Amino acid sequence: MRFTANRFRHLGRAFLPRHPAQAIALGFGTAIVVGTLVLMLPISKVGPGGAGPLEALFTATSAVCVTGLAVVDTATYWTTFGQVAILCLIQLGGFGIMSFASLLGVIMARRLGLKSRIQAAAETKSTGFGDVKSVLLGVLRITAMVELCAALLLALRFGLGYGHSFGQSLWLGFFHSVSAFNNAGFALFSDNLIGFVGDPWICMPIALAIIIGGLGFPVLFELGRHYRKPLHWTMNTKLVLTGTGILLAAGTAFISALEWNNPKTLGPLSAADKLLAGFFQSVMTRTAGFNSLDLGQMDPATWLGMDILMFIGGGPAGTAGGLKITTFAVLFFILLTEIQGGVAVNVFGKRLPRSVHREAITIVLLAVALVIGSTMALMLITDIGFDRLFFETVSAFATVGLSTGITASLPPAGQLLLVFLMFVGRLGPVTLASALALRARTPLYEFPKERPLIG
Amino acid sequence: MRFTANRFRHLGRAFLPRHPAQAIALGFGTAIVVGTLVLMLPISKVGPGGAGPLEALFTATSAVCVTGLAVVDTATYWTTFGQVAILCLIQLGGFGIMSFASLLGVIMARRLGLKSRIQAAAETKSTGFGDVKSVLLGVLRITAMVELCAALLLALRFGLGYGHSFGQSLWLGFFHSVSAFNNAGFALFSDNLIGFVGDPWICMPIALAIIIGGLGFPVLFELGRHYRKPLHWTMNTKLVLTGTGILLAAGTAFISALEWNNPKTLGPLSAADKLLAGFFQSVMTRTAGFNSLDLGQMDPATWLGMDILMFIGGGPAGTAGGLKITTFAVLFFILLTEIQGGVAVNVFGKRLPRSVHREAITIVLLAVALVIGSTMALMLITDIGFDRLFFETVSAFATVGLSTGITASLPPAGQLLLVFLMFVGRLGPVTLASALALRARTPLYEFPKERPLIG
Ligand SMILES: [K+]
Ligand SMILES: [K+]
Repeated sequence: MRFTANRFRHLGRAFLPRHPAQAIALGFGTAIVVGTLVLMLPISKVGPGGAGPLEALFTATSAVCVTGLAVVDTATYWTTFGQVAILCLIQLGGFGIMSFASLLGVIMARRLGLKSRIQAAAETKSTGFGDVKSVLLGVLRITAMVELCAALLLALRFGLGYGHSFGQSLWLGFFHSVSAFNNAGFALFSDNLIGFVGDPWICMPIALAIIIGGLGFPVLFELGRHYRKPLHWTMNTKLVLTGTGILLAAGTAFISALEWNNPKTLGPLSAADKLLAGFFQSVMTRTAGFNSLDLGQMDPATWLGMDILMFIGGGPAGTAGGLKITTFAVLFFILLTEIQGGVAVNVFGKRLPRSVHREAITIVLLAVALVIGSTMALMLITDIGFDRLFFETVSAFATVGLSTGITASLPPAGQLLLVFLMFVGRLGPVTLASALALRARTPLYEFPKERPLIG
Repeated sequence: MRFTANRFRHLGRAFLPRHPAQAIALGFGTAIVVGTLVLMLPISKVGPGGAGPLEALFTATSAVCVTGLAVVDTATYWTTFGQVAILCLIQLGGFGIMSFASLLGVIMARRLGLKSRIQAAAETKSTGFGDVKSVLLGVLRITAMVELCAALLLALRFGLGYGHSFGQSLWLGFFHSVSAFNNAGFALFSDNLIGFVGDPWICMPIALAIIIGGLGFPVLFELGRHYRKPLHWTMNTKLVLTGTGILLAAGTAFISALEWNNPKTLGPLSAADKLLAGFFQSVMTRTAGFNSLDLGQMDPATWLGMDILMFIGGGPAGTAGGLKITTFAVLFFILLTEIQGGVAVNVFGKRLPRSVHREAITIVLLAVALVIGSTMALMLITDIGFDRLFFETVSAFATVGLSTGITASLPPAGQLLLVFLMFVGRLGPVTLASALALRARTPLYEFPKERPLIG
């Protein structure tokens, strides 16, 4: 009898996650499976019959991983019920990744003995559970606040500027606000947001919600408490804010300049609208994935630049994807230190521990290998050119959701590869980064030094 | 009077190089200018008139930087005089880079207090000049030995197998042997070596000369003296030999597998010839640049794989280009250490100093930025697709010389960009690596540690 109970306990334990990374993977996996099943219900799809399993799986993964890539037209393929389901999945995914990554950050700060504003604020509560609660409540509060503000602004514009009914305006405002703050990029218009390319009343609230969601909870938390003392901000906050500013400005300049005279994108617009659209597309690479221009008509050189911006992504522990601004900032400061001939890698008057160097390199190398390998695999199973496939792969891995228009035409194996990339791209970098940082390392003995010739 | 003399001395000094890097840049620059002028002589070109300045500059740069990219057909555009001039430039460039990089290696080993077999062997001579002499003589000896052997083997085959006259056989054997050992990739046939795709008597001596030249002088020197004691080899030798073996095998498997059924490349060949051609193309990416297949007809996925192989390149201080096997080995072992949870990055029982980590990252990041930026520039001034332009850019920067066939059709600005890339790709990595390693670094004060969230 005892034996049986033990066996059951054992069985139960086998299904329970032992590490935070397993917990989040299990959570996201469950959400995707449930989402797939719900989207396969006939009530979710317009017209007779239900959605196919691949369409449902792809859409559910894209929503939970807040990517926004779509194999069917969100506006016309799904019923309002289906769209509400998608919205729930987006909110679940966005909230999930933001709180999970923030909690991992708290754990890391405590284990590594480093300063953390979140931790400091939670120190009044003596238990670890206090952290969890304060983080979850904090994320919830910020989410609700930003989403409500953006939803109201958008609803006003949809109602007053486009003559939608009261209920319809609220629904449109709410959907796009949630989709924006969670960096999901799903839209309820068949051409995404191309119809609003010159309307700052639609573009700006969406862009702001995206930027705020993409800064990440630790930055928002610190801005909320210490916005008057920028000199006391953590390195993380300084890097994310500076990096976001630089990437937004560089992206706007780059996209606007390259597409300025393209008759199929910015060409027909006024100068002001060109800059608005250039800025909006630049914001989308931090990794929201809406589009107010037809990306398929852009110059391949623009795609290449956007690939880089998307791969970098947003701030850590937010709703944005990519490898995170901070990861690339670490590489940039290593480069800068080498060129200047410095000894330690210093960032805003603080020294970067050497362990972070190696972690950043590891994450970037693995991601580059995965993205290039996946692109190569897609090249072998389709006839589509490298440009579009690489853009699609980066967009999926960085959970951006922008596309040159090939998603629906990929073979099932290609779409499944994108599903895999979205999942790994959403959970992989943050999980790997914390796993590397938290692992106990015991040096057994030290070898003598030797160096090869390089370069 | 004194004043005047001083002024002249000053003037003279301004033209003399102060650092080894300036010396080699000046040397290569002079060789390119003289080569350009010689190739512009009417005697160098078939038919009336002389070659245009861009054709001559491109060819001279390609020869001195042992790249092998060509805007005109080496076999029919140049006279025998012109071809001899090209051969001299190749030999000058190959010898120059091999001895310069080896000498830099000796200097680095001495300054950094590290073990170096070359240094150890030269220790009997007490002055630094002893090193210089022994290195130059050593490079000369190896060059002459390998080039003579390969030339004889090739001449025999050209004479016996293809019915060329005695003199013509010797000339063909000698030209292709020098072009091979120096990893130059120039050939005296309009279709490069496509005509010999199934002939191991031509392909194998060329492949061997290329591999030997690409191992680099420090490895060859050590193999010559200590070939019986592999356990005592330096880390550099172990890394280069292992890396070359892995890259050759992986490249052969990759190219053979992807092109196996391509009717325009490997398709029509027998299985044995497919493997020979796959192996030969794999060798060419270490970075010789001959071709026995029409690269323009390969699958774009094959190009992408070859891009990576070419970018990695050969061993340091040899005739091969690229960022060098050792540079990527450093990154690989950093990755491996992180994944295994190690504290120090150990390679074959020796510890990699942290300075090498940062140097390798710096070189790779700068090279990636240069190659992607150049590709983007070419995309803006041509209508050619990303695949072919990226291949061309990597091929020029890594001084490989393989092309999908677009070199001649690029606009003059594009060809000048390739000239720049060949020059920077040939001298940049080795110069930068030694500059970073040799710079004196003084820490002023240490900042407190802090780390951002990454991933
Ligand atoms: K997205
Ligand atoms: K070459």
